[in-house]
Amino acid sequence: MFEKVLVANRGEIAVRIIRALREMGIGSVAVYSEADRSALHTVLADEAVCIGPAKSLDSYANPIAILSAASVSGADAIHPGYGFLSERADFADLCEEMNIEFIGPSSKVIEVMGNKQNARDTMKAAGVPITPGSDGLVTSVEEAQAVADIIGYPLMIKASDGGGGKGMRRVLSADQLESLFIQAQNETQSIYGNTDLYMERIVDPAKHIEVQILADKLGNVIHLGERDCSLQRNNQKVIEFAPSLTLTEAVREELCQTAVDAAAAIGYESAGTIEFLVDKDQNFYFMEMNTRLQVEHPVTEMVTGIDIVQEQINIAQGLPLSVKQEDVKVEGLAIECRLNAENPKENFMPSSGPIDHLIFPSGGLGLRVESALYQGYYLPPFYDSMAGKIITHHKDPEKAFRLMQRALYEVSVEGIHTNVELLQALIEHPDVQADNVDTKWIENVFMKEWLEEN
Amino acid sequence: MFEKVLVANRGEIAVRIIRALREMGIGSVAVYSEADRSALHTVLADEAVCIGPAKSLDSYANPIAILSAASVSGADAIHPGYGFLSERADFADLCEEMNIEFIGPSSKVIEVMGNKQNARDTMKAAGVPITPGSDGLVTSVEEAQAVADIIGYPLMIKASDGGGGKGMRRVLSADQLESLFIQAQNETQSIYGNTDLYMERIVDPAKHIEVQILADKLGNVIHLGERDCSLQRNNQKVIEFAPSLTLTEAVREELCQTAVDAAAAIGYESAGTIEFLVDKDQNFYFMEMNTRLQVEHPVTEMVTGIDIVQEQINIAQGLPLSVKQEDVKVEGLAIECRLNAENPKENFMPSSGPIDHLIFPSGGLGLRVESALYQGYYLPPFYDSMAGKIITHHKDPEKAFRLMQRALYEVSVEGIHTNVELLQALIEHPDVQADNVDTKWIENVFMKEWLEEN
Repeated sequence: MFEKVLVANRGEIAVRIIRALREMGIGSVAVYSEADRSALHTVLADEAVCIGPAKSLDSYANPIAILSAASVSGADAIHPGYGFLSERADFADLCEEMNIEFIGPSSKVIEVMGNKQNARDTMKAAGVPITPGSDGLVTSVEEAQAVADIIGYPLMIKASDGGGGKGMRRVLSADQLESLFIQAQNETQSIYGNTDLYMERIVDPAKHIEVQILADKLGNVIHLGERDCSLQRNNQKVIEFAPSLTLTEAVREELCQTAVDAAAAIGYESAGTIEFLVDKDQNFYFMEMNTRLQVEHPVTEMVTGIDIVQEQINIAQGLPLSVKQEDVKVEGLAIECRLNAENPKENFMPSSGPIDHLIFPSGGLGLRVESALYQGYYLPPFYDSMAGKIITHHKDPEKAFRLMQRALYEVSVEGIHTNVELLQALIEHPDVQADNVDTKWIENVFMKEWLEEN
Repeated sequence: MFEKVLVANRGEIAVRIIRALREMGIGSVAVYSEADRSALHTVLADEAVCIGPAKSLDSYANPIAILSAASVSGADAIHPGYGFLSERADFADLCEEMNIEFIGPSSKVIEVMGNKQNARDTMKAAGVPITPGSDGLVTSVEEAQAVADIIGYPLMIKASDGGGGKGMRRVLSADQLESLFIQAQNETQSIYGNTDLYMERIVDPAKHIEVQILADKLGNVIHLGERDCSLQRNNQKVIEFAPSLTLTEAVREELCQTAVDAAAAIGYESAGTIEFLVDKDQNFYFMEMNTRLQVEHPVTEMVTGIDIVQEQINIAQGLPLSVKQEDVKVEGLAIECRLNAENPKENFMPSSGPIDHLIFPSGGLGLRVESALYQGYYLPPFYDSMAGKIITHHKDPEKAFRLMQRALYEVSVEGIHTNVELLQALIEHPDVQADNVDTKWIENVFMKEWLEEN
């Protein structure tokens, strides 16, 4: 059993994990950059080790710095949170070499799922529906044209090693294909040193629906239902729900069972998420697998009553899951709003500075706030702008919305810009309350309305 | 239906009620004394009306000031919270005269339950077990001796109009009876202008267990299970639990059904609590009925998922209860710790002053904080020292304790004294975790240990 776990992260997720460890009676080691000496995670952990300068490549995303801290503090395991080193197969390998448990799946699974084309092939082999696309890599314009004739337009050209839009091209019609394919080849060559491209039909309009998986080392694999994360801006999730408000029961069951089967097929261990695109006829297609804890895990915790972080830690200790599939009950609706330190009226420019005044919502039934902010803290400019998550839950979905409106009303932050007004407008929007949105709705519909009014 | 409700209170309970109103889409009117201009309840409500100077008799406990504010703001109803005017039958009457709904039971019920001897007689008539005692008033030493011969020692002499220990005498043996009875007569005469005394056997050791009742205006009466509030100091509750950890199922059912029958017998409407003393053989005896919301209502909300404040407001609007008795499920254990602004090492002297730094526990599953504190607030010296409530809930009782330990660890308040260290020591005490305590345990056992160690 673990006596001490190092938390290789910062911000709200580090705080979340440190709290879980305390509740489990396991010691916690925080790591902090020079910019995070007075950060809440540094204060709340049992021990804290400085791991380098503010720049994350030199601290939170530096495997050697993290492993040195683990070694010095005598930690039995490392929880990577999300981002930073959480999906680095090489880091998971290094942990194993140093005989420190990496709280996550095996490095092999991380590696396979980290490569888009491999992930797609693996999922296809496991019987998961994938978007119509090329069968393997596409190496020439002629081949691309042949694939396009089969899968149809619009389609996407993607780099196997890509991420964050790099090497990607959206092709709307046949006349664009040749030039965009060549552009993508050139870009991929210059960034990744190869021309590994594949093609997929674009599902549009689409909902982003994902399934939370828990798998222990004894072969038990279960799902905790799905989340709807369609409210996105530039592929960044803004508001998430559990469960989906629109999936039919039949599709929900098929989707969740598909995810369980896929996780079992690849020998997955730990918490993980399989993301799908769902079209307007509720056909679903594999998008990607996140082999780590996700930002939006609390909505699933609220509707199931299961602590995903504690399960993750227990799985890593070799314990069985605390629940069986038939005992997982999804009750009511949970909503999460991501409070970002940014200025939506200035093109979402990230904001940092002193937190001069802070009141977060509190009290009542079904409200939860995850944040590392406190009044008097100086929010540094070096990291992700997500500064807090406000989560509400109620057995009656309409009341979960009301509770979120109440909660957002109470948010009062001075010293930095936040997106709270944008969240308020989103949560009060009839299209959101009726779940009449897709992954492009914020950009295509909402932002225009909102910027006109503000 | 109510459009606007005035909240005739301050502090955490005013904030709690204002939040419930917002969640229900009902407008809120706060009232505030001159000392509470920047209090959280004043800030959070839709409207706020100043009702006089700091002294509560001139503001929060002044019926005319409150009713004027209700009239000026056009409120449809008044929620009195607890304390102040919440159990004043004359205030409930005045509300009725002014055609403003008093959110609570009828003034007649408040009046009957406000007189100890009447409450005892009423409950006895409704079939509720009462402690062996005099049958009505005791007017002479001879009569007192005859009663004592029947009920035995130790016994308590109590004033019918008494409260807060006034006119009360604890009689341990026959030789003390005459002199203590005469003392009680004289004291009662000088305070209340009468010599209305009655006698009761003392139940000792005892647990304080109370049943939460909800009753609507359509004749539906249900209970939401019981709370154990045995952890008290000088009759002030410190930590409360729902449900009791020691009652047998048979006793629990009998206790709750007795409370429902009693509430029905007296035509009770609104939320209310019947308090019992339970002896070591789990015999229970009526103690008193609180005809209002109680401080510790959140523990019941956490284990049942039912919002008692919203139910109260809906009952006052003439709506039926949202649940039937058979749908009330009590799940797991909830614990509430009362965070007081006081110095336990200086005889619990109340503390006030600027809140220079404040971090309250947050995040995770099953944690809730009810408080009106915020960093930068000046906690005034004029009111009750209860400054916040920390509530945890888990389906596994042991984990509810762990979660409370984690939560108390995170409490960080600078500028005033609090009892947080005392709460930490209590929650970690083996006698508390094993529920091996009674209503005198804190005074008789714990405080000696604690003061020696601190």
